[in-house]
Amino acid sequence: MKLNRGRMLTAMPGPSVIPDRVLSAMHTAMPNIYEGTLVETSISIFEDLPAIARSSGHVFMAISNGHGAWEMALTNTLSRGDAVLVLASGRFALGWGDQAKMLGAQVEVLHAPDRCPVDPGAVEERLRADAKHEIKAVLVVQVDTASGVWNDIAAIRRAINSAGHPALYMVDCIASLGCVEYLMDEWGVDVTVGGSQKGLMVPPGLGLVWASGKAMAAHKNADMRAPYWDWTARLSEDAHYLRYCGTSPIQHIYAMRTALDMIAEEGLEAIWARHAIFANAVRAAVEAWSTKGGIEFNIIDPAHRSDSTTTVLGGSIDADRLCHLCEREAGLTLGIGLGDFAGHAFRIGHMGHMNPPMVLGTLATIEAALKAMDAPIGASGAAAAATVIADALVN
Amino acid sequence: MKLNRGRMLTAMPGPSVIPDRVLSAMHTAMPNIYEGTLVETSISIFEDLPAIARSSGHVFMAISNGHGAWEMALTNTLSRGDAVLVLASGRFALGWGDQAKMLGAQVEVLHAPDRCPVDPGAVEERLRADAKHEIKAVLVVQVDTASGVWNDIAAIRRAINSAGHPALYMVDCIASLGCVEYLMDEWGVDVTVGGSQKGLMVPPGLGLVWASGKAMAAHKNADMRAPYWDWTARLSEDAHYLRYCGTSPIQHIYAMRTALDMIAEEGLEAIWARHAIFANAVRAAVEAWSTKGGIEFNIIDPAHRSDSTTTVLGGSIDADRLCHLCEREAGLTLGIGLGDFAGHAFRIGHMGHMNPPMVLGTLATIEAALKAMDAPIGASGAAAAATVIADALVN
Amino acid sequence: MKLNRGRMLTAMPGPSVIPDRVLSAMHTAMPNIYEGTLVETSISIFEDLPAIARSSGHVFMAISNGHGAWEMALTNTLSRGDAVLVLASGRFALGWGDQAKMLGAQVEVLHAPDRCPVDPGAVEERLRADAKHEIKAVLVVQVDTASGVWNDIAAIRRAINSAGHPALYMVDCIASLGCVEYLMDEWGVDVTVGGSQKGLMVPPGLGLVWASGKAMAAHKNADMRAPYWDWTARLSEDAHYLRYCGTSPIQHIYAMRTALDMIAEEGLEAIWARHAIFANAVRAAVEAWSTKGGIEFNIIDPAHRSDSTTTVLGGSIDADRLCHLCEREAGLTLGIGLGDFAGHAFRIGHMGHMNPPMVLGTLATIEAALKAMDAPIGASGAAAAATVIADALVN
Amino acid sequence: MKLNRGRMLTAMPGPSVIPDRVLSAMHTAMPNIYEGTLVETSISIFEDLPAIARSSGHVFMAISNGHGAWEMALTNTLSRGDAVLVLASGRFALGWGDQAKMLGAQVEVLHAPDRCPVDPGAVEERLRADAKHEIKAVLVVQVDTASGVWNDIAAIRRAINSAGHPALYMVDCIASLGCVEYLMDEWGVDVTVGGSQKGLMVPPGLGLVWASGKAMAAHKNADMRAPYWDWTARLSEDAHYLRYCGTSPIQHIYAMRTALDMIAEEGLEAIWARHAIFANAVRAAVEAWSTKGGIEFNIIDPAHRSDSTTTVLGGSIDADRLCHLCEREAGLTLGIGLGDFAGHAFRIGHMGHMNPPMVLGTLATIEAALKAMDAPIGASGAAAAATVIADALVN
Repeated sequence: MKLNRGRMLTAMPGPSVIPDRVLSAMHTAMPNIYEGTLVETSISIFEDLPAIARSSGHVFMAISNGHGAWEMALTNTLSRGDAVLVLASGRFALGWGDQAKMLGAQVEVLHAPDRCPVDPGAVEERLRADAKHEIKAVLVVQVDTASGVWNDIAAIRRAINSAGHPALYMVDCIASLGCVEYLMDEWGVDVTVGGSQKGLMVPPGLGLVWASGKAMAAHKNADMRAPYWDWTARLSEDAHYLRYCGTSPIQHIYAMRTALDMIAEEGLEAIWARHAIFANAVRAAVEAWSTKGGIEFNIIDPAHRSDSTTTVLGGSIDADRLCHLCEREAGLTLGIGLGDFAGHAFRIGHMGHMNPPMVLGTLATIEAALKAMDAPIGASGAAAAATVIADALVN
Repeated sequence: MKLNRGRMLTAMPGPSVIPDRVLSAMHTAMPNIYEGTLVETSISIFEDLPAIARSSGHVFMAISNGHGAWEMALTNTLSRGDAVLVLASGRFALGWGDQAKMLGAQVEVLHAPDRCPVDPGAVEERLRADAKHEIKAVLVVQVDTASGVWNDIAAIRRAINSAGHPALYMVDCIASLGCVEYLMDEWGVDVTVGGSQKGLMVPPGLGLVWASGKAMAAHKNADMRAPYWDWTARLSEDAHYLRYCGTSPIQHIYAMRTALDMIAEEGLEAIWARHAIFANAVRAAVEAWSTKGGIEFNIIDPAHRSDSTTTVLGGSIDADRLCHLCEREAGLTLGIGLGDFAGHAFRIGHMGHMNPPMVLGTLATIEAALKAMDAPIGASGAAAAATVIADALVN
Repeated sequence: MKLNRGRMLTAMPGPSVIPDRVLSAMHTAMPNIYEGTLVETSISIFEDLPAIARSSGHVFMAISNGHGAWEMALTNTLSRGDAVLVLASGRFALGWGDQAKMLGAQVEVLHAPDRCPVDPGAVEERLRADAKHEIKAVLVVQVDTASGVWNDIAAIRRAINSAGHPALYMVDCIASLGCVEYLMDEWGVDVTVGGSQKGLMVPPGLGLVWASGKAMAAHKNADMRAPYWDWTARLSEDAHYLRYCGTSPIQHIYAMRTALDMIAEEGLEAIWARHAIFANAVRAAVEAWSTKGGIEFNIIDPAHRSDSTTTVLGGSIDADRLCHLCEREAGLTLGIGLGDFAGHAFRIGHMGHMNPPMVLGTLATIEAALKAMDAPIGASGAAAAATVIADALVN
Repeated sequence: MKLNRGRMLTAMPGPSVIPDRVLSAMHTAMPNIYEGTLVETSISIFEDLPAIARSSGHVFMAISNGHGAWEMALTNTLSRGDAVLVLASGRFALGWGDQAKMLGAQVEVLHAPDRCPVDPGAVEERLRADAKHEIKAVLVVQVDTASGVWNDIAAIRRAINSAGHPALYMVDCIASLGCVEYLMDEWGVDVTVGGSQKGLMVPPGLGLVWASGKAMAAHKNADMRAPYWDWTARLSEDAHYLRYCGTSPIQHIYAMRTALDMIAEEGLEAIWARHAIFANAVRAAVEAWSTKGGIEFNIIDPAHRSDSTTTVLGGSIDADRLCHLCEREAGLTLGIGLGDFAGHAFRIGHMGHMNPPMVLGTLATIEAALKAMDAPIGASGAAAAATVIADALVN
């Protein structure tokens, strides 16, 4: 029976739920694009975004999605023929590496063991072996939404330092910014890549790149540079529109301003804490459902399960049918398994604009669908998750 | 810890969640109010509303809330000094009776036993005793959102008929229309009162009254008539604005049109079935939570618990604290106990634009709050409710 | 040829253009109706509205249109059989008087001469003749949108005082509040009636009444009182919803808050000055178009033409065809002639959320339509109006 | 005096006014991005867009602005070292050429005479001289919003054909699609570039490229290809998101669908005719204002003045002050003079979602501002424009 009549709820690992306040901010008559309120608003965003990554460097904002932001990061810092080390622990660092390859880089992939995070020790070992420092950049994601892994960005930096290697350290935080602690300066990251549509609570359409001083220096010699993405042109003070290489993303500027206001009202540390609690609730549910041959976490080490996305292996159950049942009958959109996971896993996004009814509603609906499929499940995940939330409410 | 950051969810027994589609329909530039699209849209609503109450009579739509609709119903059909019998089973028939009294009626209240519905036998007995037929109207609500009771409107009509009494039969369906089966013609109701803001999924601001032929006949001799509410003026064909006694409720007309489209897309019978399932889920949760001295249903007879609102007695727990915890920390608004119930009960609305994530999210959040308060609860209500939904999903 | 594709523009004398900011404020998830943000916002509106009428008294806000506000004003202050003097200078005081009659008052109409404002001298004379002070209330509108007249409310108060008459002085400002200077306390008005949908820039759905101390005293003895409108109940401190006699108009509360913020940002005096300039522009256009046998102002005395609405007699031209041409081909909605004016006049509203492109666009479009109809017009009204705006821009 | 309170009106040459219907369509809860409604809607757009350019080829839609679309067009069809002929008649073909240069092309500019369109004869001559066919692409804009010129795309194609030259013919229609007749197939254009934010009535954020079979063939050998823009990847049938190289532009998909519906409702030919009339009205106003030493058209030949943008030389008047006066005091945003025109010209956009009140309101407000500045103007432009509209209304 179709019960999917209320407001559709997404628990995909992004694009996540956009607040009404953000959507309403987009409903505004067209402004002057050369001066006045829009330009001032845009400038305020460029001023506020560095703090979101705990960075003191430059931030660039392109009309694009995350793949565009990847391309901006690569083309502005690398030259054709440069060697790039991709630290794979899921799907997205690999995709980024594919881009680098098409752009002319020599790409080498260091695979994490199956269902595991990137191993800093292996990174150190590989970089030590690169005595001539031919590797110009190391690419990694903080959270991979395919595998659900959380990589320890600070530990990988320590590994790079231990190897005494000068490569640029480039981190994709598309699925973690605004969800999970991230300290670009303190952790020594050179290039951070982000997108608008996950923890930042803005519709897809803005690709974000933060650059350290070292990245800006590398930019000077990069020969992959392309006009649309070019940092030098975007830093020009001649006209504000140059920051966007042309017409500015008017509705998205209003949206981003509103989202940044909401982030400031709650506080980034409080946001990280809230995400940790919701992630605990999700994990408590998955733990409760888990059985031999049934549901289990993809990421084996509990310390490396992401606070913004959980990937669940379906075992004997048909994960795609689960997703369809949730969406078509119950109005809940889950993430399907990506790549090798297709049909064998489902993914729960827990990022951004969330509260207990949304998170618990997601979990209890999954539980209902699992029961409807006669899936072998252990205890009630909804009950377990409610207990986690209960503990948080009183503290 | 404050976790209330996502989209606020209301589980008050109205005003209920308004669909985005309805809210977006209200964001429209001001139209011509004398002719064209707005007037045509308004006419289409007047044409479609009778079927919502399964009525073949007239419908009137006033810019007002439900109290205004009450007043429209009374002033158009009664005269000062008329006797009115109020069938009380909660709070709202009493409030309607208070209005009748201030308007000049002689009001007599027939109370249902505590925590029980109106007893048709008692109604029949009282009306038989009114040999002179001094009672001109019988007032009752189908669902009382204070007590959570569902009254059997068809059975009460049979009681009136058994007594051979000619009083107008007036039913308040504000909290039940669009949620619960209601057959105005078939059940012999003379006046039905509704509001926009519950099962009809439109913001508060429209009071609705359906009138049978018998009610229209009574209207001719009513001396309580007042210009703003007057049916005769509103039926005038001279100009469309007369239907609203002045400026029409433009944004609400767009909203109501959209809501009626959504109702037509799902089908009223399917809507009733969906509400029944969600009500079963809510009741399964309350049942699971119930303990001696703890939580229990207000309405004793399961057959008379409403499919749109559930009133829960808190027993030893502080119901107001529960509501505050849910709202301020978790982003879920419940209904507080009204009147005598204040502080001793809470209410769960399950009406209108709902799906499993919303209903189960509501219940699991209540469970989390109950646990946070160390309330004595039995089993997991969230798990029990998920089981109910699971059963519905496969059927 | 149909050119009506852009945003529809209304120049009806209300409902007027609603700002996007106001409409976006209405797109908000359902809040708690018993406490918290909604109630605080509502309270802030009750605190801010008196200043809009320059009143120190109470303000009441009903879910209704202006006709409802009329009824609230009458029922709260009068008793059946009371004599009421209606000062007619168009259509709306008469309509208000009709309401009073149906409610049981003895209504006497004092007609202004054709195409003229209310004559304070005649008012004084009539009241002097009422030696027994049987007249309990004097009803007048500040601006009548049918005739386009502006009545001198201060002068009429002086006339009442000269006659030494104690009648309540009740003024309908529905079409003038937020457009034209209005000083309730200073001018000694006892009851002011307003609506949301004109100068206040909020969709129709809120009826407003301001009451002086004298009006509140009269309220104590009024026997027309009705529950929905009753001031005593609405002043109860028991619960906030009593101020609205039931469910509060949630979306309209958000809308009104936003509109009042916008009014505060501009300043009421600045708003009056802006309206005066736009009215001058409209009048300059009508003056330019005027010819013998052609277009002319309905109100003869320039000092009594309203700053919010201009009624234009069409002379030999078909005013309804003009309105249709503007709307159906050009996307501009004008006011048609009301009542006796039907077909013989058209009306231009110039109230609320307006700027030079909107006002001049209205006038130039009317000019285009007049030319398209081969109407006999004098000089270019668009050019004349632009000159008025030019003068204002440099000052 | 500040009169800028109503809805801001933009008459910039884009981004143009976005219809409420389009903005409301963007206010929708996050959908499934992998299947269902969003994907179906996206597919329908890819199906409908070719007809907008009267093309039977492929269309590509990137999350970007027009500059991004330029880059997509170039990188997919050219190789480093290729010669490119830029036909300059304003500012934008030059900007496109600058991009080509940075991407590695050899760029040669053929300048049109000052204030004139591209001369097809000069194009033919230059191409004949390229006996070795080293020029691989010819770049031109249909409408240049800096100069206000309209280039004759069909005539330039005939010139290329007369020269028997095989270069790709690439046309920027960003400022003309949805405004001005454009027949890609019939005129033999190989690559058409568009953007969402002008005639297509969608917020900035979508870059569009249409490719002929010849362009697709050239793509196979292009070495400028970059992953984000790559056509081959975007044509993959593996997954829908590949069409956007990653996360799809959800809100813009809803917006574009709505805008295409509106275009279909009116009909593209009717849209072109409507734009022609409004352009005539604008030109009639500028003609009327023109004086010796005062205002004049930038483009000398009336047949080459664009139907979507008019560039006006200010002569002795301070064009920037005019723009400021219109915007800050009157709520009308004009286009300032770009590049060499800065301070010496202003620009009027007349594209997209427009009707007579908007166009005439724009012109009459400019007239008011000119008068406020004591600018030497001839006759009333507002009156002249109204006459043009009048003629259209009766036909």
